[in-house]
Amino acid sequence: MSKKLVVIGGVAAGAKAAAKARREHPDWEIVVLEKGEDISYAGCGLPYFIGDVIKEREELVVRTPEYFKDAFNIDVLVHHEATRVDVDKKEVCAKDLVTGEEKVFPYDKLVIATGASPVKPRVPGIDLPGVFTLRTVSDAEGIRRALLPKDSPRGMKGVVVGGGMIGIEVAENLKLRGLDVTVVELTDQVLPGFDFEMARLVQKHMEEKGVRVLTGEKVESIEKGEDGKVATVITSQRRIPCDVVIWATGVRPDTSLPKGAGIELGPTGAIKVNENMETSVKDVFAVGDCAENVNLITQKPAWYPMGSTANKMGRIAALNLEPDRVLGEEGGAKTRPGLKGVLGTTVLKVFDMNAAKTGLSEAQARAEGFDVETVLVPANDRAHYYPGYRMIVTKLVADKKTGRILGAQVVGDGVVDKPIDIIVTAITLGARVEDLQNLDLAYAPPFSMAMSSTIVAANVMMNKLTGRVKGIDPVTLKRRLGDENLQIVDVRTPAEIVLGTIPGAIHIPLNELSSRCGELDRSKEQVLVCKVGLRAYLGSLILKNKGFENVKILDGGMTVWPYEIE
Amino acid sequence: MSKKLVVIGGVAAGAKAAAKARREHPDWEIVVLEKGEDISYAGCGLPYFIGDVIKEREELVVRTPEYFKDAFNIDVLVHHEATRVDVDKKEVCAKDLVTGEEKVFPYDKLVIATGASPVKPRVPGIDLPGVFTLRTVSDAEGIRRALLPKDSPRGMKGVVVGGGMIGIEVAENLKLRGLDVTVVELTDQVLPGFDFEMARLVQKHMEEKGVRVLTGEKVESIEKGEDGKVATVITSQRRIPCDVVIWATGVRPDTSLPKGAGIELGPTGAIKVNENMETSVKDVFAVGDCAENVNLITQKPAWYPMGSTANKMGRIAALNLEPDRVLGEEGGAKTRPGLKGVLGTTVLKVFDMNAAKTGLSEAQARAEGFDVETVLVPANDRAHYYPGYRMIVTKLVADKKTGRILGAQVVGDGVVDKPIDIIVTAITLGARVEDLQNLDLAYAPPFSMAMSSTIVAANVMMNKLTGRVKGIDPVTLKRRLGDENLQIVDVRTPAEIVLGTIPGAIHIPLNELSSRCGELDRSKEQVLVCKVGLRAYLGSLILKNKGFENVKILDGGMTVWPYEIE
Repeated sequence: MSKKLVVIGGVAAGAKAAAKARREHPDWEIVVLEKGEDISYAGCGLPYFIGDVIKEREELVVRTPEYFKDAFNIDVLVHHEATRVDVDKKEVCAKDLVTGEEKVFPYDKLVIATGASPVKPRVPGIDLPGVFTLRTVSDAEGIRRALLPKDSPRGMKGVVVGGGMIGIEVAENLKLRGLDVTVVELTDQVLPGFDFEMARLVQKHMEEKGVRVLTGEKVESIEKGEDGKVATVITSQRRIPCDVVIWATGVRPDTSLPKGAGIELGPTGAIKVNENMETSVKDVFAVGDCAENVNLITQKPAWYPMGSTANKMGRIAALNLEPDRVLGEEGGAKTRPGLKGVLGTTVLKVFDMNAAKTGLSEAQARAEGFDVETVLVPANDRAHYYPGYRMIVTKLVADKKTGRILGAQVVGDGVVDKPIDIIVTAITLGARVEDLQNLDLAYAPPFSMAMSSTIVAANVMMNKLTGRVKGIDPVTLKRRLGDENLQIVDVRTPAEIVLGTIPGAIHIPLNELSSRCGELDRSKEQVLVCKVGLRAYLGSLILKNKGFENVKILDGGMTVWPYEIE
Repeated sequence: MSKKLVVIGGVAAGAKAAAKARREHPDWEIVVLEKGEDISYAGCGLPYFIGDVIKEREELVVRTPEYFKDAFNIDVLVHHEATRVDVDKKEVCAKDLVTGEEKVFPYDKLVIATGASPVKPRVPGIDLPGVFTLRTVSDAEGIRRALLPKDSPRGMKGVVVGGGMIGIEVAENLKLRGLDVTVVELTDQVLPGFDFEMARLVQKHMEEKGVRVLTGEKVESIEKGEDGKVATVITSQRRIPCDVVIWATGVRPDTSLPKGAGIELGPTGAIKVNENMETSVKDVFAVGDCAENVNLITQKPAWYPMGSTANKMGRIAALNLEPDRVLGEEGGAKTRPGLKGVLGTTVLKVFDMNAAKTGLSEAQARAEGFDVETVLVPANDRAHYYPGYRMIVTKLVADKKTGRILGAQVVGDGVVDKPIDIIVTAITLGARVEDLQNLDLAYAPPFSMAMSSTIVAANVMMNKLTGRVKGIDPVTLKRRLGDENLQIVDVRTPAEIVLGTIPGAIHIPLNELSSRCGELDRSKEQVLVCKVGLRAYLGSLILKNKGFENVKILDGGMTVWPYEIE
């Protein structure tokens, strides 16, 4: 008799697990239970469906149940909600949400892929008509309908609660539809996983594109208008009139089913799995957003609900359903396929800006107890003489003691996913800064600078680690403005200074620094400032050569300075 | 007394070495001798200067001698040709090409960066007016002038000899100027470092864009017209009328100066250096295109004249001029900065297609004695539902025994530099195929598929290495067409077949394969074919399940098939 595989949840990880299981086990019975109406849909594309960048529901729904039956001989039952798992009897109870019928599905192997759901706190008014979360194709369709009471949504007012990745993507797409958009974020920055100065570049860009961004504000309630629909968002600071609200303050794993079945959860609240996607119960696997990850750097449990990881987990579960069988006539894999961990990599497009991150931010690394060094390096994404080049800022975070790379953030108008993926690969393979410096990366003018931005950043990091230069980051410098023991020296040209400089800075162009350094008080700490950092570095060498002992440069220069100038 | 550094050659590596040396040694005397009229110019941008994509000479010349004096206090002497190095007296003799004066430059440390020159074989007519090589800004200016005898070069005829990277870039740029362009290549493919089927994709694209590409043809002579200028290129097969000829059959290192000084050359003919850029003679360093590299994979001497490598070498030489000195108050680097080796990474844009390569091609890996496995995997460069996605084909080459990745080639309309740089990083850090499979690469619909192309390629490779599927590459299948023991089965849909299939293939759509497999002769080797490989893989599982023993799939499917269809 052929074995039975039941998969609960058919979006990303579940669909992947089922399809890959079919390739591994041509003769098994495979059933997928999905409580929603769609399987295998592209959740990450939903913001663009709102923005009408993606026009048809069909583009987002990768596979239909019919396709799964035809191509893979997999039975997909939509509108079927699994209500109970009995791990002793090895069966799943499910309810047909259309007929109300209760059904029992016995299994030999079970894969749980119940996903995650939007967080909805008990804020008064959060359930009003016109307040949406965004998780399913139906959610997105509801928002699309709300944007079309008239012919065009132009001039409507939208409030996005939450300045994380999804909130920002939604804000962009609402703006592209012509709405007046306000983003309300509880913390003091958008993109909470990023360091402040990097997130600030994104926030500035959003503001330049006409999105109002309110940080450090809490939504306290939502009020309805005379028509019964949402009309006003009330924050800790103000009242914001609105026609539509998208609540995007994150998701949490859907774990009531496994919890009820006695399947162990991890410290993050998601299902605990080993690297083969096995749960605490024999023959039960968990994959996708409902399952826990391990952070490759800290080696601690972590939870990053990402479509890319979900697909990998689904594949790995399928490969481990019967790990001991012979894999093929030419021998088998020496080890069981496993997922050692993830880095929490993210990437975001917002209008003409891109932002990407992997590993630990500076703040996260410090919180983990690392003694960190950082660099902030503006550079071009391709040769400066090739048309269309754009600027990106790379922040590297390294462990001072070992030189190990702990994380990176890249933000700018230019290409950010390439440098982040280079660093993802490097971190995964345990790279130290010196391993990045001499990578033989692809170079031709349409693709890169001769010294790619990543290599330049690694070189600056090595200059710091070897004591050639000392940096001060913008957040720290801002805090120390007004400190009498600190002298800021802007070494840019007079023409560059016209637009302003850091409050309190004095101006000595680099080519005059050697002759005019007598104007500086040697007893003070000197902080040199230029546009990106290179001239400040040269200036620091000049001052050191003149006997100055305490010289620093502003990391990232004026390009990254996120505060006011005067 | 301060030390003296002399640098011979001021283009990429020499200029970099001098500038970095200044930062390391504020009080040294630094002199750069350059025989040409420009220093620090962007050699890799020259094809785009011909194409008028880059419009002004000034855009290509990164730094002037005046800038070097002002910013770095470095004396740059252009039109100064170093004629002799005396390593015992530690001095360089140079001739001022303008005044004819002979000068002597004593040194404490010497950096040789003499570069490379175009290969010009003794072909009759190669020195005719209108025949150019392309190495310097002046060369490019000469070509620009030759393209403007009238108002527009439109309709002129250009012949490019050599189908390597430079030849292809020049061909594209001449075509963009409106010329009729013919490329003549001696070997049977363009991009000789690439495997045949990958190079073929590039050649096809060039032909679609109207460039005539003649492979397997030798230029035997060049004839002049009545005006004394170039008029006809005579190959082993035909006469090609032309107004301008660009000879682009490669470069060789300029080593007469170091050879005369008794400095050792390596087996490639370039100057032998260790990883700190030290030559066989004390206090003499060599960097850039005149110096040898080590191939990271084979660990053998190799020579890859690349601007990116030149910059790294220049930097490393500067850091090793006095390796024992204290680096800074916070301590020094634990090891001397060094370049362990390179991968011969290249990337090319030609019209709307991109092609990149790193490490060993399949042919190179086999020549090195590796037992290799390969995959050819077409995929999209971003989510299929996000506007503007493009296709790329990834070829991975791995060592069968260890799973170590030996090389990769990525070709297509889409982004190729990102996947190649991921693989560059992976190979440099010693990655095996399984290390690529679970990289936490950046994913959002505008940037990548949920399973990025590199991960899909690694998964297919692992399917092969574990015996789940056997492949046959297009070159081998082409050779075996007509073999009676081989049956080709095209499993695509009837609609897809309309445009043609591989000669001799029979057509059984995948969804009929199970029921119609009786039509196939089980004693034969079966080769399944679809568009990209996935359905062929599914089909191979069906046939194996039905008891077929010898089943393969065509790697890359019809997407990569480089030969005729019928």
